[in-house]
Amino acid sequence: MSDYTVIGKRTAMVDGPGKVTGLGKYTDDLVLPGMLVGKILRSPHPHARILRIETEQARAVPGVKAVLTGQDVSTQYGILPVGRDETVLAVGRVRYVGEGVAAVAATSEKAAFEALQRIQVYYEPLPAFFDARASMQSQDLLIQEDCPRNVKKEYHHHFGNVDEGFARAHVIRQEHFYCAQVTHAAMEPHSTLAKFEDGRLTVWSSTQTPHYLHRTLSSVLKLPMSQIRVIKPLVGGAFGGKDEPLPPEIIAAGLALHAGQPVKITCSREEVFYLHRGRPATHIDMKIGVTQDGKITAVEQTAIQDGGAFCSYGVVTILYSGALLAALYDIENIKYDVYRVLTNKPPSGAMRGHGTVNTRYAFETVLEMLAEEIGMDPAEMRLRNTLRPNTRTVNDLRVTSYGFPECIRKVVEASGWKGKWGKLPRGRGIGIGASHYVSGAGNSIIRADLPHSTVILKVDMDGGVTIFSGTSEIGQGSDTMLVQIVAETLGLPIEKIRIVSADSDLTPVDLGSYSSRVTFMAGNAALRAAQEVKAQLLKAAANELKAQPDQLELKDEAIFVKDDPSRNISYQGAVPLALALSGGTLIGKGSYAPPPEARGGKFKGAGVGPSPAYSYSAQVAEVSVDMETGQVKVEDIWVAHDCGRALNPLTVEGQIEGSVSMGLGQVLQEETLLKNGLVMNPGLLEYKTPGSLDSPRIHSFIVESVDPEGPFGAKECGEGSLGAVIPAVTNAIHDATGAWIRELPVTPEKILKALAEKEGRRWPR
Amino acid sequence: MSDYTVIGKRTAMVDGPGKVTGLGKYTDDLVLPGMLVGKILRSPHPHARILRIETEQARAVPGVKAVLTGQDVSTQYGILPVGRDETVLAVGRVRYVGEGVAAVAATSEKAAFEALQRIQVYYEPLPAFFDARASMQSQDLLIQEDCPRNVKKEYHHHFGNVDEGFARAHVIRQEHFYCAQVTHAAMEPHSTLAKFEDGRLTVWSSTQTPHYLHRTLSSVLKLPMSQIRVIKPLVGGAFGGKDEPLPPEIIAAGLALHAGQPVKITCSREEVFYLHRGRPATHIDMKIGVTQDGKITAVEQTAIQDGGAFCSYGVVTILYSGALLAALYDIENIKYDVYRVLTNKPPSGAMRGHGTVNTRYAFETVLEMLAEEIGMDPAEMRLRNTLRPNTRTVNDLRVTSYGFPECIRKVVEASGWKGKWGKLPRGRGIGIGASHYVSGAGNSIIRADLPHSTVILKVDMDGGVTIFSGTSEIGQGSDTMLVQIVAETLGLPIEKIRIVSADSDLTPVDLGSYSSRVTFMAGNAALRAAQEVKAQLLKAAANELKAQPDQLELKDEAIFVKDDPSRNISYQGAVPLALALSGGTLIGKGSYAPPPEARGGKFKGAGVGPSPAYSYSAQVAEVSVDMETGQVKVEDIWVAHDCGRALNPLTVEGQIEGSVSMGLGQVLQEETLLKNGLVMNPGLLEYKTPGSLDSPRIHSFIVESVDPEGPFGAKECGEGSLGAVIPAVTNAIHDATGAWIRELPVTPEKILKALAEKEGRRWPR
Repeated sequence: MSDYTVIGKRTAMVDGPGKVTGLGKYTDDLVLPGMLVGKILRSPHPHARILRIETEQARAVPGVKAVLTGQDVSTQYGILPVGRDETVLAVGRVRYVGEGVAAVAATSEKAAFEALQRIQVYYEPLPAFFDARASMQSQDLLIQEDCPRNVKKEYHHHFGNVDEGFARAHVIRQEHFYCAQVTHAAMEPHSTLAKFEDGRLTVWSSTQTPHYLHRTLSSVLKLPMSQIRVIKPLVGGAFGGKDEPLPPEIIAAGLALHAGQPVKITCSREEVFYLHRGRPATHIDMKIGVTQDGKITAVEQTAIQDGGAFCSYGVVTILYSGALLAALYDIENIKYDVYRVLTNKPPSGAMRGHGTVNTRYAFETVLEMLAEEIGMDPAEMRLRNTLRPNTRTVNDLRVTSYGFPECIRKVVEASGWKGKWGKLPRGRGIGIGASHYVSGAGNSIIRADLPHSTVILKVDMDGGVTIFSGTSEIGQGSDTMLVQIVAETLGLPIEKIRIVSADSDLTPVDLGSYSSRVTFMAGNAALRAAQEVKAQLLKAAANELKAQPDQLELKDEAIFVKDDPSRNISYQGAVPLALALSGGTLIGKGSYAPPPEARGGKFKGAGVGPSPAYSYSAQVAEVSVDMETGQVKVEDIWVAHDCGRALNPLTVEGQIEGSVSMGLGQVLQEETLLKNGLVMNPGLLEYKTPGSLDSPRIHSFIVESVDPEGPFGAKECGEGSLGAVIPAVTNAIHDATGAWIRELPVTPEKILKALAEKEGRRWPR
Repeated sequence: MSDYTVIGKRTAMVDGPGKVTGLGKYTDDLVLPGMLVGKILRSPHPHARILRIETEQARAVPGVKAVLTGQDVSTQYGILPVGRDETVLAVGRVRYVGEGVAAVAATSEKAAFEALQRIQVYYEPLPAFFDARASMQSQDLLIQEDCPRNVKKEYHHHFGNVDEGFARAHVIRQEHFYCAQVTHAAMEPHSTLAKFEDGRLTVWSSTQTPHYLHRTLSSVLKLPMSQIRVIKPLVGGAFGGKDEPLPPEIIAAGLALHAGQPVKITCSREEVFYLHRGRPATHIDMKIGVTQDGKITAVEQTAIQDGGAFCSYGVVTILYSGALLAALYDIENIKYDVYRVLTNKPPSGAMRGHGTVNTRYAFETVLEMLAEEIGMDPAEMRLRNTLRPNTRTVNDLRVTSYGFPECIRKVVEASGWKGKWGKLPRGRGIGIGASHYVSGAGNSIIRADLPHSTVILKVDMDGGVTIFSGTSEIGQGSDTMLVQIVAETLGLPIEKIRIVSADSDLTPVDLGSYSSRVTFMAGNAALRAAQEVKAQLLKAAANELKAQPDQLELKDEAIFVKDDPSRNISYQGAVPLALALSGGTLIGKGSYAPPPEARGGKFKGAGVGPSPAYSYSAQVAEVSVDMETGQVKVEDIWVAHDCGRALNPLTVEGQIEGSVSMGLGQVLQEETLLKNGLVMNPGLLEYKTPGSLDSPRIHSFIVESVDPEGPFGAKECGEGSLGAVIPAVTNAIHDATGAWIRELPVTPEKILKALAEKEGRRWPR
């Protein structure tokens, strides 16, 4: 198919050996001499004024080296410039159960816990809000003083003319949906180690965004960035839960500064639930109109997200929930009114499929209802509403490569859809869903006219190549991706390439691992850096071979004249020549920023823009439903994902399977349960994510649309498959049972209730 | 005098705070989890065949994790490509007392020592040589099989025509001298920490030459260079004793590889004496002819150096002892026959003033004798024999800047020479001496057409500048020097500049701290890198100010139009503009290699060339000699040193004072005493270096010849002052007593003996 030697080949992760042998180091594995244990005292109140904090007794506990309260680290910060509303320890007021109030560093965990117990905090409890719709009604009691009606951010956008659209519709349907709060539940809890030595702060942290952490440490701790080094060790899963600077990271650093000794904070699983930053509980009203032949004429959505007590990524989450509606199907008229609301709960944030997943569930369900109403095959109906490649949507999103129709056809064919849909026995059903995602945001969070990714390559005297990249490998395979791109471009085996990533002292800036931006952006930067090195090698070889550089080819560790391969020089032989030619340091530099036409004027104001490329996914799920107990078993999932080009099919499939598994968790079983702000299931036994035994058979199909701007044609693959699995399963449940469930997760109780209602029976029995 | 803001200012060392507070980390201060102690079993024989080594019992000692013998690390290595004659542990034969035979790594020092005791080595002793002249007579017994007469290297060079020169002489004098073996005695013993993790070896070592260590680790341990990281922590003095890869460094790494745990080896003081690599015991025959008016007509020298059992730097040491004769005075006819001889002693190596010090003592003494003989003021005689700037010597050394005459005049005037010489009472005397040194070697040790130094600068978003340099700060101030050069060029205070030096993963190649090369070579590289950054800043500022870059000036953190300083932009304001202009990474790259005309065809073959610049020193010493006891007290030393331009007068004076102190040690008291190869005084109580209480008043004068090629005109200042102090003191002793001492150190016994011989008395009485 292609004549690439590394690209497109199933390639084992370069950081795999350390992970499978146990020799690799995660943050909590790191040990420094004199290292202290850091612990955080957390608020028992969902909302209260802090009257006084007494720390004298805590400081007197033997082994205690530092105690911090909010006054010591009071600078407000937040991942978004428009959302700097948080402090790392509460100042004056606590706004959710679990918010940090004070922190200690001590020589042992025992001493640290004892010190926490001896900190006296005097609170005056305040009324609290636990529901976004109730919070929006508040007149006097504001969670943040400058947010009237407790609305952190709202958007009211109207593209085209929905009134006209609905007027043209043959059928219109409007439904209300509720999606429960879910969280990432990464295997590795958050962990940070910090030391302050010789006037410099070094922070090792389990983070997706070392560069934003770097900036935040500088601003909160009042140290110049050049006096701070941020290193990201191995990360054991993140999924958005580590993609913004979080309090424990900054507290560990602050404690190290105060104690003059290294401090490590590793969160307990319970604390991870209070850090949260997961997907918000969301109310959605979705209205769609279609013509008799299934063409969508207008979409109108109202969404209310329960953001918790602080902004986090909320402004983006709520914008994405509306704006990205336009990039999957061809819709001429779109209107959305979306609200990010403050409540007295842990802040919601970004989670895999950020901003799109709940909307997608609502949309795909209403579409299914409409298909049923007009008597059309829902797969066929989706095909009738596709976009074309290289278009601009009604809200000015630039869509380039577009493999969505092929995705639908793949899963329809592979699942035997036409023989099954509407034809399976009661209790067995099949459903379809679709989703899409960005390949990074067009605008960076920090507003500067700088590249989003820069990669530097260094070629050693012995021909070894080192990649320096600020990217954050979090298990998704970004290190391997960069190694592959450089290896392919330089005609080398991957063993010759080493990568140093995410160490701010060593690596150039990369904005981090979020919004599925790394392959597209850092991949392009690496490609350009490698091309720069290649040009130097070819130039040196051309001198030696008495040829012009453009007559030469570099492949399989050799450089040769294309027309006469007998005239050649080995890569190993060319390296010293190129070194001499370039003054002793053979380096290449490449950077990437999205082109202006992908930044989208209309969305710039929100601090993010649309994306340089979109990926697409279509899925079919086949389920069995026990009609007695309401128990659902997902038997098979067929997934087709358009990822542009699969640089490494192994990891693309891994991402698809991981997304499916996470979506299955959300659709069938996951929910963070809170009672007066207290998390009732803060453990992995109680908050039940799907295990490998719960997995259906997953049939993955990679659709390669070969994006014109992606590196070797690649685009997103890590998040886009999540959104489709939820409606595919709920639609299959409908096919199996005839019932519609408008609330996630779809538990057996809800199915039995819906069946009872449908059949006019009393529920509970 | 100059309008520099940083250059030429007395500047505190940037690494000073860590050193004076104790927070700075030397290698032995480093601790890693699971770290083992490495210890080396050493030969008790000066020369013996190894019949068998049994290590089973050692391996059985609880806590022992690895045992190595020579067979495990048998690749021959050596700092010079022509001198790869050493193994890190003896293979088949031991050649000196103290040579390593086996090594262990264990969980405690106790276990390691116990294991050493349980290693059985079966030796067959061989006859041994302890004197170079005796060793040269050997026919059959060769210390190295391929070195007939036990001569490692000899040079027989003849420039001009000495027969003709001596024929023109009015007086000719030939004398024999002997200089005892001396060693560096740096405060910090050699220490190395190594770990092998994730397939990569990291080595922290107290070294002057991290890059050569890097290469040697790769070749001996068979790992690609790109899988090895070499880091140099703080170094507590080196003086040449750490300027080549030494066995404990490679053994620590080898043990770490075998044990799979980190290993640290810190040498005992006794072991440091056996590592040695100091100045060889040397026999010199020096013959000089002068005309009646004091002009030198010819010089002929025979020198025999006791090199110990291996080459080390010996080929260079012996070449320098002859070749550099020509670069101080104007001499038309020079001949030398010089021999580096193997003996069964620890290898001699490079020591401050490498290759020149003993020759200088012999030369300056014979010159003094000749001055006495022709009745001429010896200071005046030296002035009559000076070179001119910008000349080529008889042996093709290129001399550019030349402040030697001014050095002589300075110390003559400051010391009140004319009122004192020959006029002080018996027992009080004054003497003069002179010396010179290179500013690095013209050719690198590794023979490649690559720069000798490369420096990379990175400007952070917040305007902080980081210098990446492979240079090795060993206490001489090279980090501070680089910071000054960059600060001056970029118009910044030194607080804005951070330096990362000597970390092979982070820093580009620099050949290391030897031959006084760093200021000249790395300084020039840093200057060029800073100019490259400056150009980018000016270009960005020019866009903003609507001017041309060459109309702009960068100074005091601002960029302004020279003709209208009201049109300006702050440095801080220009940085983001320059970052945007340069694709997000504002970096500068500079490198330096000596120009071809300074590489000297005649010397290329020796693996080193002459230097791009020479520094000069003249010294006057005033001494009191107790005529009863022979005890010498040096009262005052006047030193003038031509260092081109003093970038940091504080450290230049520090280097001058340190060189004087080290020279005083060699002239009056230091000597490594060996008995059958066993060092009899292997401790700092027995091997007595001068302490601060022993110091005379040192009057330093900096002569600034402003070298045309040095960075801001700078050249060498760390070694050149050592050679002059020895003859200045011995000539002063002669002035005080009338006696000539032809042997170093000049102990009271030798003075009393010389006085007795001179006066025809019996000695000992």
